Amino acid sequence: MHKRSICPLANCLDQIGDKWTLILLRDMYLGKQRYGDFLSSDEGITTNILASRLKEMLENGLIEKRAYQDKPVRYEYFLCDAGKQLLPVVQAMSQWAEQHISGCRQPPAAFYALSPDDLATK
Amino acid sequence: MHKRSICPLANCLDQIGDKWTLILLRDMYLGKQRYGDFLSSDEGITTNILASRLKEMLENGLIEKRAYQDKPVRYEYFLCDAGKQLLPVVQAMSQWAEQHISGCRQPPAAFYALSPDDLATK
Repeated sequence: MHKRSICPLANCLDQIGDKWTLILLRDMYLGKQRYGDFLSSDEGITTNILASRLKEMLENGLIEKRAYQDKPVRYEYFLCDAGKQLLPVVQAMSQWAEQHISGCRQPPAAFYALSPDDLATK
Repeated sequence: MHKRSICPLANCLDQIGDKWTLILLRDMYLGKQRYGDFLSSDEGITTNILASRLKEMLENGLIEKRAYQDKPVRYEYFLCDAGKQLLPVVQAMSQWAEQHISGCRQPPAAFYALSPDDLATK
């Protein structure tokens, strides 16, 4: 991957600086694993963007996949450690939005108490 | 602005889910205020993207601008409270990248000890 600089923030944004990657991680934090699960989320991701983001997340080692069906082959997606460790970023963003953007749903209190180690790997 | 859902994460990403907005906030956390300052950062932002991002950040209330010169008019940019309060997101991303992406520069220890209230507004 092209590195824009050696700044850790820039390196992080190279991997997750878009409108969808963290939404998919959020879905996986909530237990979603399959294409259809991700497509059904309120934000309405398209199949093209979903396929492209999952591919990048696999390449970057944020997630893994495992076939659960042949003919046609279908995959389930699981969090790798690097993907789980982005939970504090997702929590910090959610907390910011609750305080600075009107009309946001408040997540259950348990969400902010979660730590990466609480997340299921598979 | 179009809201994709009432999820606070999605609302946050609607404003900062791209490769550049948080880079510009980082620059402002470090004291940069002017077009030329932002253009000189290592990541090599283009003038088109810089103009577009600053416009969105102004519209979203993350920053303010003040003319410091007439003919031609030129502006300095300052952090609003909402922009300052994104510091924990930037810190969490930097910390994650230090642990999960090789070849990142380590920020000075003082960076992780900063709180939003320590940041200059203008």
